[in-house]
Amino acid sequence: MTVHNFSAGPSILPKEAIEESIEGLRNFKNTGLSVVEISHRSPQWEETMVEMENLICELYGVPSDYAVIFLGGGASMQFTQIPQNLLPEGGMAAYLKTGTWASNATKEAKFWGKVHVVASSEDKNFNYIPKGYEIPSDAAYFHITTNNTIFGTEMHHIPDSPVPIIADMSSDVFSRPIDIQKYGLIYAGAQKNMGPAGVTLLIIKKDWLGKTGRNIPTMLDYRTHIDKESMYNTPPVFPIYLSYLTLKWLNKQGGVSGIQKLNQQKAALLYNEIDRNPLFAGTTAVEDRSLMNVTFIANNKEAEDRFDKFSEERGCNGLKGHRSVGGFRASLYNALPLSSVEYLVSVMQEFEKTF
Amino acid sequence: MTVHNFSAGPSILPKEAIEESIEGLRNFKNTGLSVVEISHRSPQWEETMVEMENLICELYGVPSDYAVIFLGGGASMQFTQIPQNLLPEGGMAAYLKTGTWASNATKEAKFWGKVHVVASSEDKNFNYIPKGYEIPSDAAYFHITTNNTIFGTEMHHIPDSPVPIIADMSSDVFSRPIDIQKYGLIYAGAQKNMGPAGVTLLIIKKDWLGKTGRNIPTMLDYRTHIDKESMYNTPPVFPIYLSYLTLKWLNKQGGVSGIQKLNQQKAALLYNEIDRNPLFAGTTAVEDRSLMNVTFIANNKEAEDRFDKFSEERGCNGLKGHRSVGGFRASLYNALPLSSVEYLVSVMQEFEKTF
Repeated sequence: MTVHNFSAGPSILPKEAIEESIEGLRNFKNTGLSVVEISHRSPQWEETMVEMENLICELYGVPSDYAVIFLGGGASMQFTQIPQNLLPEGGMAAYLKTGTWASNATKEAKFWGKVHVVASSEDKNFNYIPKGYEIPSDAAYFHITTNNTIFGTEMHHIPDSPVPIIADMSSDVFSRPIDIQKYGLIYAGAQKNMGPAGVTLLIIKKDWLGKTGRNIPTMLDYRTHIDKESMYNTPPVFPIYLSYLTLKWLNKQGGVSGIQKLNQQKAALLYNEIDRNPLFAGTTAVEDRSLMNVTFIANNKEAEDRFDKFSEERGCNGLKGHRSVGGFRASLYNALPLSSVEYLVSVMQEFEKTF
Repeated sequence: MTVHNFSAGPSILPKEAIEESIEGLRNFKNTGLSVVEISHRSPQWEETMVEMENLICELYGVPSDYAVIFLGGGASMQFTQIPQNLLPEGGMAAYLKTGTWASNATKEAKFWGKVHVVASSEDKNFNYIPKGYEIPSDAAYFHITTNNTIFGTEMHHIPDSPVPIIADMSSDVFSRPIDIQKYGLIYAGAQKNMGPAGVTLLIIKKDWLGKTGRNIPTMLDYRTHIDKESMYNTPPVFPIYLSYLTLKWLNKQGGVSGIQKLNQQKAALLYNEIDRNPLFAGTTAVEDRSLMNVTFIANNKEAEDRFDKFSEERGCNGLKGHRSVGGFRASLYNALPLSSVEYLVSVMQEFEKTF
């Protein structure tokens, strides 16, 4: 039975990229060595690091005043590293609270300075994106979470901001074009659209650093990794390598504009079925529906209990909703083929007939 | 041509473990999903995390008052995270300065408190391990680097200490038995004996934590990762997985005692040749010679220049010495077969005949 992978992360990656990484695990660039066994100071690996950086700059149109770096520790580490590097002593940062990860980011920032929450959707269990808030012009930055993996909302409009925007794009990075100039920093844990778990991408405006008046331990200072092009110490080689192969695959799909069209098509197909099928309902405000994580519930307890088993028996993996929302969540990341969404829709329709 | 991999790290891993990781990349535990695509909250992955922890406890005889955790960021991150978690406000820590990494650890600790360097071998370019020093009993801990990858020295005797020992074992972890009770904390970047780059192992005495009087950001607090068994956020899945398979392989080689015998045999073979061959000389004090990283130089400039090319043409990879020492360095980590050392010795003897 084919397994259709709707996991929220770690999640589906392109088969082609995984197979190419296997070639690299056996014989990297004809060196006779595995990509995990070769020195990270070898010309073959250094070349891959440069190509990876160039690929990201190409995909997102990143100009030369930004740096691209790869760190370990996950996006959660950035919740503290960001204010440590960018919130000046005695300063204030603005946060938009749109879900669990945004809340964690807000909490960690308080360790380093004053935090102003411009708006929150906690009143409705984060089922919408707040609008019409004001971003204080004396904030050091404005932090947003562009897609909320757990609650299934996504920012379809990035507001104009009087201060640099910092965006956690962990769950919608490389899913659509962005205007990089709007951001002072974007970051993303790899394990959704970019690659396997174990590496975090940062794209950061270089002239913004070193202005907090704070001493920062070497490994936590972004400048260390910018100066050494992410090779101050041994980088997470395989996670970077498979991410590189995933982004090469993305480039062949027409890059972020090409994949955006497919992502729109996949999401429309599933939301249409949720809206049509009398057994199901979406959980979020329609205008804020995520193209990456489609959250929905069943309209009665019996259907809820049965669909879990029904879909799993038919090869749908990772559909169980997060405990904070309940119901179901289908993650439709870049690498998920349209055919998997078509299949899920057919399973939902088959399920409807059993009632 | 067979390539013999003497790289200092990332370095050779067991073929068997790499091949098994490839199976997992294609179909992890018969789930129909790749190990990098399955949820880290799936029972299949959670089971692997538990097995990995148990395996480490078995290999090193770790009792239940210690915790085993896996972090991202590399061992260099621990240079700051250790004093942050374990050096009380206003306290002092003792460091033994035996090389580049020990010096970096010392430097980063100064950020958090007073540092007392008990001894240093910097006077002789770190070519020996200092002895006969005194460890102050009012230190919070005593930090050592058990093996010095760059300089080719190793501590063959761990001193008795009036305070808990913290050991950076990045380049000799799992190469020999240890008495875990001597240590308050041991840590190691994976990319030598344990697995691929991207994960750092920590084994830590649990009751030692939370006593610095310092607030610590969530991700940097060891207790976060102990409480959540290294799954507070998504762990570096593939680096952990291939490390797990490498340690399963090690267990089959007779564990750390079994591999110690082989490591002694490999090192003796190469050091004997270095001492015998009139073209070469070792760079370190004989009693402190590392079993992991064998550093040597050629006895004249012509031999130095020629051996580099000569050995490379014969399939010896990664033999070039670190710029801080010059000459050559053969790393003989666990996974390097005896036959590769025999081969290198034969290349050195063949080279001798060309003079």
